[in-house]
Amino acid sequence: MAYDGTDYHGWQLQDNVKTIESELNAAINAITGEDIQVIGASRTDAGVHARGNRAVFDTSSAIPAENWPMALNSQLPEDIRVVSARETEPYWHPRKCATLKTYEYVLDCGRIADPIGARFAWHVPYKLDVDKMNEAAKVLLGEHDFTSFCSVKGTALSNVRTITDISVIKEESRVIQDNDRVVISVTGNGFLYNMVRIITGTLVEAGRGKKTAADIKEILDNKDRRRGAMTAPPQGLVLARIVDME
Amino acid sequence: MAYDGTDYHGWQLQDNVKTIESELNAAINAITGEDIQVIGASRTDAGVHARGNRAVFDTSSAIPAENWPMALNSQLPEDIRVVSARETEPYWHPRKCATLKTYEYVLDCGRIADPIGARFAWHVPYKLDVDKMNEAAKVLLGEHDFTSFCSVKGTALSNVRTITDISVIKEESRVIQDNDRVVISVTGNGFLYNMVRIITGTLVEAGRGKKTAADIKEILDNKDRRRGAMTAPPQGLVLARIVDME
Repeated sequence: MAYDGTDYHGWQLQDNVKTIESELNAAINAITGEDIQVIGASRTDAGVHARGNRAVFDTSSAIPAENWPMALNSQLPEDIRVVSARETEPYWHPRKCATLKTYEYVLDCGRIADPIGARFAWHVPYKLDVDKMNEAAKVLLGEHDFTSFCSVKGTALSNVRTITDISVIKEESRVIQDNDRVVISVTGNGFLYNMVRIITGTLVEAGRGKKTAADIKEILDNKDRRRGAMTAPPQGLVLARIVDME
Repeated sequence: MAYDGTDYHGWQLQDNVKTIESELNAAINAITGEDIQVIGASRTDAGVHARGNRAVFDTSSAIPAENWPMALNSQLPEDIRVVSARETEPYWHPRKCATLKTYEYVLDCGRIADPIGARFAWHVPYKLDVDKMNEAAKVLLGEHDFTSFCSVKGTALSNVRTITDISVIKEESRVIQDNDRVVISVTGNGFLYNMVRIITGTLVEAGRGKKTAADIKEILDNKDRRRGAMTAPPQGLVLARIVDME
């Protein structure tokens, strides 16, 4: 699935608000007449977007897998699109299988915020030093306890995760001359609550020269969220893709 | 100025609706206490966007030109941003000076519409032949009477305009795999009402093999709007830039 998360209260079902999951359940149930709840791969936060999220559901419907995208898209709001579908093994669970997820975070570093990219970027009106950001990012590579990079509201049993790839690149804005866009791309086997947004807040401080790679190593080692940087806002974040590891 | 035109009834002042011009006038008048109406360079239609529109106004305010962007942006809604400002010669008129305007039109040619680019593209779910589109586009290069490419609601004294550059390129979508984006870029000394959107509708037919370059030559020569193709919807169109010719 790809979606513009701006108008949704995130993935997960909640009372009285629109979520990606509630829209998807409603679409499936309108088609099948069954009472189905999907299981999502990535439970994106309110306002976060996706280019490649996944969900699984059981149905006794005879609709072949390849026809589901069109059937669902006819029911879903236009800002949520199912891009492809396939049949899975029974009991396959999209969060209990070995996958690598890639998130991207877009920073608009112009003095004046680009109004055309505003739904999908965080406006940070500073010249960021991308080399320093990459140096700081390298500290986070590999297996670590990411407690310092997890919201205190996180409820995971373990805060150990592995980041397999992290990079920061600078692009020219196509909208406002001399505005830079900085894109942080993080790949790993799983992410804690707000983890990519806290990593982003931290790398922005590195890019502004307010934190060094050594500071970030210390924050990581401290395993204390209070030592970390601010949580970046949701609209710059997109779940870019999920890749199976087997 | 750059703006996301989605929520506006176009550039031009109209009763009881939000337009780019009305927002800009209100911002200037809030700052100066004067009763100023701007003159815009490109009176974009409802739903059309801009990366580089211009406007001029007379004021007795002592605010230096370089401070106007920040002053105006503090008053304007976030989807309209003033990017730069300068003092002009007296009586300079942004539509009566020699400029080249470039418009871009973005087509989303995926089978499934990209929900993340949807505000800024027209979903045309066909494989378009970009070579055929470029061949057809060449017919429009140069000075012509573009009556066949002007809305019947157009009120220009002459329908003769010059297109100095027109090209069609294909890009990969960054959102949905295998979705192509096709971008039509048109530069000229001025454009008639709906002209770029009618050119786009026509080039899409060329890309689908429904019209040849010879057909388009005939449409142009006929000087009859009824012979042309449909007007493409506004949301794919952006005024990319205006360049002074002197």
